[in-house]
Amino acid sequence: MKFQVGCQLKYDLSTASTFIFNISAVNNGSQQVLEEHLQIEPAVNSEEYVSSTVKNRLLRLTAPPGKLQVSYQATVALSLEEDNPELIPEIPPEKLPLRVLNYVYPSRYCESDRLIRLAQTEFGHLLPDYSRVTAICNWIYDNVTYLSGSSNSQTSAYDIVTQRAGVCRDFAHLGIAFCRALNIPARFVSGYAYSLEPPDFHAAFEAYLGSRWYLFDATRLIPRKGFVRIGTGRDAADVSFATIFGSAQLEDLKVSVDCLTEAPPQATVGAITSV
Amino acid sequence: MKFQVGCQLKYDLSTASTFIFNISAVNNGSQQVLEEHLQIEPAVNSEEYVSSTVKNRLLRLTAPPGKLQVSYQATVALSLEEDNPELIPEIPPEKLPLRVLNYVYPSRYCESDRLIRLAQTEFGHLLPDYSRVTAICNWIYDNVTYLSGSSNSQTSAYDIVTQRAGVCRDFAHLGIAFCRALNIPARFVSGYAYSLEPPDFHAAFEAYLGSRWYLFDATRLIPRKGFVRIGTGRDAADVSFATIFGSAQLEDLKVSVDCLTEAPPQATVGAITSV
Amino acid sequence: MKFQVGCQLKYDLSTASTFIFNISAVNNGSQQVLEEHLQIEPAVNSEEYVSSTVKNRLLRLTAPPGKLQVSYQATVALSLEEDNPELIPEIPPEKLPLRVLNYVYPSRYCESDRLIRLAQTEFGHLLPDYSRVTAICNWIYDNVTYLSGSSNSQTSAYDIVTQRAGVCRDFAHLGIAFCRALNIPARFVSGYAYSLEPPDFHAAFEAYLGSRWYLFDATRLIPRKGFVRIGTGRDAADVSFATIFGSAQLEDLKVSVDCLTEAPPQATVGAITSV
Amino acid sequence: MKFQVGCQLKYDLSTASTFIFNISAVNNGSQQVLEEHLQIEPAVNSEEYVSSTVKNRLLRLTAPPGKLQVSYQATVALSLEEDNPELIPEIPPEKLPLRVLNYVYPSRYCESDRLIRLAQTEFGHLLPDYSRVTAICNWIYDNVTYLSGSSNSQTSAYDIVTQRAGVCRDFAHLGIAFCRALNIPARFVSGYAYSLEPPDFHAAFEAYLGSRWYLFDATRLIPRKGFVRIGTGRDAADVSFATIFGSAQLEDLKVSVDCLTEAPPQATVGAITSV
Repeated sequence: MKFQVGCQLKYDLSTASTFIFNISAVNNGSQQVLEEHLQIEPAVNSEEYVSSTVKNRLLRLTAPPGKLQVSYQATVALSLEEDNPELIPEIPPEKLPLRVLNYVYPSRYCESDRLIRLAQTEFGHLLPDYSRVTAICNWIYDNVTYLSGSSNSQTSAYDIVTQRAGVCRDFAHLGIAFCRALNIPARFVSGYAYSLEPPDFHAAFEAYLGSRWYLFDATRLIPRKGFVRIGTGRDAADVSFATIFGSAQLEDLKVSVDCLTEAPPQATVGAITSV
Repeated sequence: MKFQVGCQLKYDLSTASTFIFNISAVNNGSQQVLEEHLQIEPAVNSEEYVSSTVKNRLLRLTAPPGKLQVSYQATVALSLEEDNPELIPEIPPEKLPLRVLNYVYPSRYCESDRLIRLAQTEFGHLLPDYSRVTAICNWIYDNVTYLSGSSNSQTSAYDIVTQRAGVCRDFAHLGIAFCRALNIPARFVSGYAYSLEPPDFHAAFEAYLGSRWYLFDATRLIPRKGFVRIGTGRDAADVSFATIFGSAQLEDLKVSVDCLTEAPPQATVGAITSV
Repeated sequence: MKFQVGCQLKYDLSTASTFIFNISAVNNGSQQVLEEHLQIEPAVNSEEYVSSTVKNRLLRLTAPPGKLQVSYQATVALSLEEDNPELIPEIPPEKLPLRVLNYVYPSRYCESDRLIRLAQTEFGHLLPDYSRVTAICNWIYDNVTYLSGSSNSQTSAYDIVTQRAGVCRDFAHLGIAFCRALNIPARFVSGYAYSLEPPDFHAAFEAYLGSRWYLFDATRLIPRKGFVRIGTGRDAADVSFATIFGSAQLEDLKVSVDCLTEAPPQATVGAITSV
Repeated sequence: MKFQVGCQLKYDLSTASTFIFNISAVNNGSQQVLEEHLQIEPAVNSEEYVSSTVKNRLLRLTAPPGKLQVSYQATVALSLEEDNPELIPEIPPEKLPLRVLNYVYPSRYCESDRLIRLAQTEFGHLLPDYSRVTAICNWIYDNVTYLSGSSNSQTSAYDIVTQRAGVCRDFAHLGIAFCRALNIPARFVSGYAYSLEPPDFHAAFEAYLGSRWYLFDATRLIPRKGFVRIGTGRDAADVSFATIFGSAQLEDLKVSVDCLTEAPPQATVGAITSV
């Protein structure tokens, strides 16, 4: 399935500032950038870095005081596989690949160490397979209200589980924290999401089950097959779309996602393997 | 300089449990394991995994209910370099190697995003070089009391900066958080420390300055040249000496560090490059 | 019903220290101290203060370095009334006596302002009467594990609702916080509790319903009719059994409660009016 | 000294809502309301309650959906005394009037129990008298930035001491928390403040020293002699200018304070006794 994704960011800089953008679609086994275009005004040099394991593409530039506009457009082919959820077990700690162990540990916004008892109470009795992560998503969907402006950049899973309102990053953080509290490796993914209203960057999460990472989205706002990955990290701290060193105001943010394939992605109960 | 390091861990397991130990000395450019011996009683299979970037050595084993004893001994050659602190600048964000960027972001125990204003107030006016990280260590040493039992596994830098008492891991977390709040990459290191009293695993931190990582220890409890590295991570969450899946009580922990070289390490004001 | 209650506290003081004890049974409309005996060794002067509204009896004394032993014994007649729970409504804000308004506001250990959405989700749909507070108690009993040592003096309702383990004061704090989040005035009560095992000071809470305060205890550890009140406050911060200014170690604490009436108190589903 | 104070509050109610306003100037030994006028549109019944100890005047009314406008005007005579700061000692715990003991305990926004070590480090060595509370105010003024919008209704002293930015209520909360951590009773006061720019409700705090309450304001934004008291409480939770039960949007808030005496109040280093 092909998508045309893009964003346009406008800043006003009061001093020269360095930006590290994380807005480019990744290239990996299930996602291929066929064509892309980046435009920076004023024209300043930029540098790209691709992280070694998760292939995040970081774009660094330094701009003078005044206006800065960054526009990114890409055509991306997604070939996500869909597995049968009934055949995907959790992997017990004695068999877990140790390279994914980092994703079991708590992180800034996913304090899984503080949610262990709650996770046990709510999900401890469930079958240790794909359906348990689905149960986590259902719990979040049922108990947390999606509400713009109800959280901020310091809000963590520990807050959300009590305050019960948040946005997509908060839903993802809580899903990750519950998984880790049950010893299921889980990580944060940011991306362009087809049919998100209003259009914006989106966040979801992945859990390591069977022998790969599966995509989950407790918000139920988008079809998972329409999720074009930008970044992968332990939580939102790792994949901010813009890290700014200096002084800059975001004046406008536009995100667009179009499906170039005739049949656009639909909601599914299948297990989506994103990598 | 050569060291003989070791530990002996005794557990009582009420159920079969899986352990991931992080107690082996790493091999890297400045540290070489010349000889080592690992003994596990009862004899169970174990598996070692060496992480790709920081070379942490994880040891996984699953043991039956009952007693478990793990003993590790190693002879390690350290060849830490000592640089002139006066010649080591901070690296501004526009020149920072993007592979160390992860270490600028906040983590579970180092909520640097909540300490930005405080870090600016206390250290914002200082010269952006090695001496600023020394100033951070001095601040911690002057303002935080080293007090066994004053913190727990949930205590973070945000707590320590107000509660003003902690142990080595807390000192390291606060140093890391202050550095990151100033855009200096910083990370947690665990290890065997010469002359630590009472003997125990130790923790310190590294900051990325000039073109490498330098070791800092705000506790002033040990000579940095006598620090044999075990693990490197974003904070203590990544390098616990034992992660246990199951049910086990630690009944005894012994750590030993001897210097095999005639002149043992001394305290120094030099900049110690640990990698 | 008559009870013989008492406690014996032994301290070791490293410096002269001032104590404010809150261990004496109160005298109010439903509780009468028939006889009591206080013994302090060494013999030092003490001063009693009875607070104006809730009648807490504070005992202040200053003791020299060395041992201090305080023994209190009282015979107390309780005449708690039992109302029909089905006839007790919540009082809407427009009719709430303004003198109880303080007990709707958040306090140190009962951050009701942070639990509003959760309280609404869990209890918002229930009938606004006595049964709703019972539902709160049931929720706490079902979801929080009573576990000695699982909380500390800084643990608040906000922590307990997620960490899901605590002791009697934590159960009371969460009950209070939920009530206040629903605009039901609620307050903390400490006391001597018949049949508590092991014997210790106990804590419960009261909610203002109908036209008076009713006693609730989410721990289900004691019959509410066997609760001899010591203190009433906004939360545990107000009714510590000993506030110490100086340096003293509690070396021993004994609490005893005997029923002097032939038929000891039983568990009941009735509404117990404690004042 | 005479002041003309007033406020005008405009709300839009989506449902019938009950309000408890705390906007009326108190009458006490040092403050006399000479004349006042309250206007409510639409005309609905209102009820006043004066709290027994601190004389807060609560105004309750229930209004139908639609617009609500409340206007309050008062002429107030202030007769604040000014004592010599050099003659005002702290009162040691063994002599503290037990009726003020509540104000030593931690509260929702003043977690003094978590600031004890910090308070000792910063202020423990200072003389136990009025000058120590002045030192607390100076510390706050020097270390915390007054910044509109930097805090919210959940921000507490524990946050402010690290985040280092806040508004008047945050400055007061931190002052209170530091005092209590040093066993100095302290409480929150809200009021109308002469010459505050832009005009708004103001908050400050009082410490109990010598034999009375003294007014402190770490913001240094107003002359303390121009502070007309509205409410007194343990922290901001107790003296919100409007507690709303229902659904209402504040659409406009105007506050005005004029000095009717020829010589308006000036800044002073004197000790201002507010009650």
